Order: sequence, then C-alpha cells, then structure tokens
Amino acid sequence: MKILIANLGSTSFKYRLFDMDDSNAAQLASGGYERVTDYTNCIEDMLETLVGEGHLQSGEEIDAVGFKTVLGKDLSGCVTADARVLEALEGFKEVAPAHNPAYATGIRCFAEKLPTVPRVALFETAFYQWMTPAAYNYAIPQAWRDLGIRRYGFHGASHKFVAERSAEMLGNEVVAERVRQLYVDGPGEYEGAPLRVLSCHLGGSSSVTGIQNGVAIGASMGFSPQGGLPQNNRVGDLDSMAIPYVCKMLGISVEEAERQLNKESGLLGLSGVSNDARDICEAIEAGNENAQLAIDVLIDSIRHWAGSFFFKMGGAEAIVFTAGIGENDADLRASVCAGLEDLGVQIDPLANAKAIRGAEGIISSPDSKIKVLVIPANEELVIAREVFRKVKAS
Amino acid sequence: MKILIANLGSTSFKYRLFDMDDSNAAQLASGGYERVTDYTNCIEDMLETLVGEGHLQSGEEIDAVGFKTVLGKDLSGCVTADARVLEALEGFKEVAPAHNPAYATGIRCFAEKLPTVPRVALFETAFYQWMTPAAYNYAIPQAWRDLGIRRYGFHGASHKFVAERSAEMLGNEVVAERVRQLYVDGPGEYEGAPLRVLSCHLGGSSSVTGIQNGVAIGASMGFSPQGGLPQNNRVGDLDSMAIPYVCKMLGISVEEAERQLNKESGLLGLSGVSNDARDICEAIEAGNENAQLAIDVLIDSIRHWAGSFFFKMGGAEAIVFTAGIGENDADLRASVCAGLEDLGVQIDPLANAKAIRGAEGIISSPDSKIKVLVIPANEELVIAREVFRKVKAS
Repeated sequence: MKILIANLGSTSFKYRLFDMDDSNAAQLASGGYERVTDYTNCIEDMLETLVGEGHLQSGEEIDAVGFKTVLGKDLSGCVTADARVLEALEGFKEVAPAHNPAYATGIRCFAEKLPTVPRVALFETAFYQWMTPAAYNYAIPQAWRDLGIRRYGFHGASHKFVAERSAEMLGNEVVAERVRQLYVDGPGEYEGAPLRVLSCHLGGSSSVTGIQNGVAIGASMGFSPQGGLPQNNRVGDLDSMAIPYVCKMLGISVEEAERQLNKESGLLGLSGVSNDARDICEAIEAGNENAQLAIDVLIDSIRHWAGSFFFKMGGAEAIVFTAGIGENDADLRASVCAGLEDLGVQIDPLANAKAIRGAEGIISSPDSKIKVLVIPANEELVIAREVFRKVKAS
Repeated sequence: MKILIANLGSTSFKYRLFDMDDSNAAQLASGGYERVTDYTNCIEDMLETLVGEGHLQSGEEIDAVGFKTVLGKDLSGCVTADARVLEALEGFKEVAPAHNPAYATGIRCFAEKLPTVPRVALFETAFYQWMTPAAYNYAIPQAWRDLGIRRYGFHGASHKFVAERSAEMLGNEVVAERVRQLYVDGPGEYEGAPLRVLSCHLGGSSSVTGIQNGVAIGASMGFSPQGGLPQNNRVGDLDSMAIPYVCKMLGISVEEAERQLNKESGLLGLSGVSNDARDICEAIEAGNENAQLAIDVLIDSIRHWAGSFFFKMGGAEAIVFTAGIGENDADLRASVCAGLEDLGVQIDPLANAKAIRGAEGIISSPDSKIKVLVIPANEELVIAREVFRKVKAS
C-alpha cells in the first residue's frame, strides 16, 4: 500500500512516500517546498516528480494521503479527513495559526486534485483521547472551558510509538497489539500483565507522558505545545500570574509577552547561548553557568513530570528516552535517572554511554527492576503506519 | 517570653499574644480589627486591651512582635524586621498588593509605638530558601528573571511544622532538631537516617512540598500563591498560553483575565457551586457532576505534585496531610493514596475514618512501608515558635 504523508506549514509543504504492508515499511521518496503560496502547484509538481522517478504510475495509485494535523476543536484521533476535520481545524485556527489553516487548505487541495484517494488526519493529540477529565481539566471558569481550554498533549505519534515498541522490546505482546489497534478499536478493557511506561521525548521540543498498558494517562504539554518541559525557545511550565506582572513592569502587551515566551524562552532564555542543546553543552564545557542552569532546569522538569506519572500509575516497569536529546545525551539520561535506586532504577553506565542515536538499546543494568530504554524516534514512519492501519481497517 | 503575632491585611489587623518557653506555648489573648485605616490606632487600642485584661503591664513587656510577611524581593527567612525588610516588601508591592504595603506600614507603626521591642519578619517563603536554582527557575528570559520571577513557595510555616512534627512522630530526633534550628543555624550538612516527607497542606488554599531530611526541596506554589494546586477560587497550574487566547476570544483585558483566575477559578470555577470544599461535597452527594469534577481535579493535582517530589527525592518515608481539607476529609486522603501499594503505601481504612480535625494520627496500616500521617495545622502558634527561637538566639 502506498501512503503519502503531507507535512504542511503556513509557507511550507513536505512529503514522504512510503510503501507499506503489515510487517514492513519502506520510504520510497521524500521532498519539499518552501515559500509556498499555492499548495495545488506543489501537489502537481510532487506528483510529476514521483511519476518521473518511477515511484508511481499516476497520483491515483496512492492508497492514502496522511496529514499530520496538530489539534482540532472537539475532535481528535486518526480519522477520515472530511468536513468534520475541516471544521475542527477551523475552530482552533487561533490556537494553531501556523498549522490549522495550512492543513485545511492542503486537505481541500488534495480532495480536488486526487478525489478518489482517501485522506486521513492524524491529530498530534490523538494518543491522549483517553485521559480522564480529572487529568485534562484546568481549574478555570466554565466560560474558559467552553473555549476548549484544557490539556491536550502533543507529540502523540512519538509517544504512541514508544508505547508499542517498548512493549515489544519487553516482550509484552498483549500491550503491543493493544497499542497497534488503539486508533482502530479503541482501548477496550485490559487484563494482561501491567506495563507502565514513563516516555520522555526530548528534542527541540520535549514532552513526558505516562503510558499505562499502552494508553496515555496524561501529558506534560497542555493546552498548547508551550506547556510542560522547557523547549528550545519556548517556556514550558510557568505561573500564569507572571504574565500580568511582566506586562505591568516591562510595559509590554500580552501579545509581546506571549512572543517572548514562545521565541526567547526555554533553553535559549535560560542559557542566553542557543536554543540547541548541542551548543549549550559546548558552552557548559567552556564554563558557562547559565548554560549549565538551562540543562539543570530541563532535567528537573523531566523528573518533575516523570515523577508525577510514576506516582499516578503507582509505579513503572520502564523509562524510555527518545528524540534528539533523548537518543544522544547519555549524561542527561544518567542525570534524569540519578538517585532512583530505592525506586528500582539502576543505570548501566557502559550501556548508557554506548547507546547512540538511531539505535535501540536497554541502558539499565540487568537486575534493574525498572528497565530503561532508548528508542529512536521516526515520526513520519509512525504516522504512515497509523494511516495504513486506518485505511486497512476501513 | 511574650510574643505578639501581627497579621496584617490592607484593611485588617489581627493579633495573638503567646507566652512561650522552650517547651510550652500558651495563647494568652487574640483579637482583631476590620476596616482599618490607621494601624497606630489599632496598636494603641490593642495594648490598652491587653493591659486592661491583665496580660501585660505595658507594651514594653512584649518580648518580640512577629510579622507574617508573605514575600520580599531578594530576601526571605526569619529575620529582624529592619530597613532591609521594608525595602524587600516595597520591591514586591506589585506582587502582593494586599499584604506588602500593609506589613511595611505595620512594621513602621510598631517601631514608632514600641521602639524597644524587637520586631521579626517571618516570610512565608522562608522554608524554601534552600531550593536549588534548577528547582526554582522558570525557563524565561533574563529580563523576566531580573524582575524576580521564579518559584518561591508559600505556606512555609505550615510545611515547616509538618517537617518538625512528622520527624518527632516517626522518632527521627536528628531531623526534628535540624528543623527546629533551621532558621537560626541553616541546614548545614546532614548524615542521619533519611526522612523524606510529602507534605500536603490542603485547605482554602493548598500546596504540596517535598521535604528531604527537614529541608524543602521544592514547592507546588510558584511565583505567586496562585500556582500549583487548584485553590478555593484561584486557578493553580495553567498553560500560560491560555491567557492571550482568552483575552483575544472573550475580548477581555489581561487584568480581567487575572481577576477571573484569582476570583472565579479553582474549586469554585470547576464546581460552579462554591469555593468551600464542604459545600462541594454536599453538592456531590446531591449528584452534581461539576462538583465531583472539582474534587477529582484537586486529587489529581495533589498526586501530580506529590509524585513529582516522591520521584525527585527517590522515594519517601511519609505522606502528611494537614489543614482544613487534609485534616477533615478521609475520602480525599484515601483517594490521594489509592493504588500506591507497589510504592509501599497502605492506608488503614478504620484509622483513616477515625482521624478527626485537630488531632494527630497515623492512618497507614502498621506494615505500610510509607507512613501516612495527619498533623493539625496551627499557623499562628508555629510562627510564634519561630519568632521565639529567633529572639532567643540573637
């Protein structure tokens, strides 16, 4: 089955074409366009390229187009990208102004250009559909809740892949199969051996999720992808009363405060050096104290969120690190797991040091009660698999 | 030693007079004034009353006046209420507008009226002085940090009392003595048996703190007392991006958003019923779903914060409940501790049901690895004891 994944920004269009079956996925091609003003032109050009390179006979040979939608009002999941999806994207265009209008337009263009090819939207929030109201509600007035302000959670595809792959690696096939079918069948009841996972997606943007028997029980990211852990240049958790105070004291508007929290905060704001953890680590080696503070705050925040889910799940069988920082930074992994011996976490320093980007590994010592894993992230592939499962089931 | 505790609001003045020695504290008198425009009048009237009732020969017989200050810029602790304190209160008058100007004026009035009587300020933030920069920093720009925006933590007197009393109840005299001397000697090094406590102060306003060997490692309340757990009518944790979104969508100012988060949120905002947990519990019994949601969100948030500290400390020896809800609500205590058997928490349902307000109790079963305690709060007494220790040491 040939699955095309479309990744749309307000002025960009990227794609990957996969050839998939039940057990394998091969990437056939990838490409993209910047400074896009008309998606239809991009689609036409892309199809010409894919046919020209021999990946397709024609656009109609594509079995489904998958869209990495971010969040929609009153809708989530892995769903047919129909009028309901367009409405949900429209309803939250103010929340995700860089993405929602782009996806709405892109979905319409594909519908026009390739009307017979199924379109599937996989929302980033899909993995968190089964959070309880206690977990997703803020203590805000009804009028605010009516606007759709609640915790959503993002990085859903990545954390769901962690759920599936960690179950496979730890030999819990019942959970692995439950995760594979989650967007098709829903979670149903679960009666197998428990598998509680603290999933740490640490990269340019970062989040932690608690996964109980394959299903997310919460998310560090909240209403927006700005909440939770400090990100590259986004703030993460902040006492909301800081905003009125800063507006008053610095004489800036709430929009400017928002901009600073989105663009000049996070690892960049703390370090004053860079929004990239690699630059920050170089600065640390050169003795920069603010750079050290940035990493220390990140580690503290990872432990804060991991601890919260650990306690809510009443324990854990595994801690997983994924994405750029999670896969690369052995020191950070060791710091996150430091001092947890009483809880059953024992890192194997050699295995941790040897775990390199792009390779799976178990970095806990053999007798560690809680296993610590590194699982490489591959977001586009994960999305293609979800779209494949959805199309196959329908 | 006669210690007067002054509790000042923008238009109120309350006091309690204690007679203290190393082992005992007796409350001699208490009183207060509302709609106050001139603290000097109140002080004069209070002294007349106390002399008239035979508690004092004259105002000069008071050994010290203690002030329950909230937070100061670049200053915390249990300290002589001198010019440095006045400056610190002035520096944060915008952060605590209802309290800081009142305390600054009150301290000046006492200095004028009873110049020979020592004055001591005990900041609510005092217990959190030893948090690490990783724990107290938000990932915000330097210009925001320069304004003093960081986590402070509040309810310090209450959590410090929990630290001391839990150590006594569990027979760890080394930790108990360390806590007693904390504001006089500082924490120093610690080499005794570990005592890690999750302290849950749950009442009209609520907070959770992790206490490692008598010293707080963090706080659920942050820059303001609005952060952390949902409060009676204050929001608690919130994705800060919700504020610009609400301002835009509801067409309200940031000041109005701030007001709604302070006055119409928390348990009141969620339940739509009341800001008082007792009313909310009545509404739950009458089948009100929003009332149930309010309590569920509170419990989830308690577990979130307790879990965070549990993990950061690498475990815990005790969980403590204190203040109105913590002392009264056996169901809520049971819910907070539910499903924690793997972590070593086992509630004794009978002991839990029997624990009543104002009485100490151990509500875990005898073989629970982690002890669960109820410790009554008595804030004024706690403050008087700190002031007594400070005056005695100086």
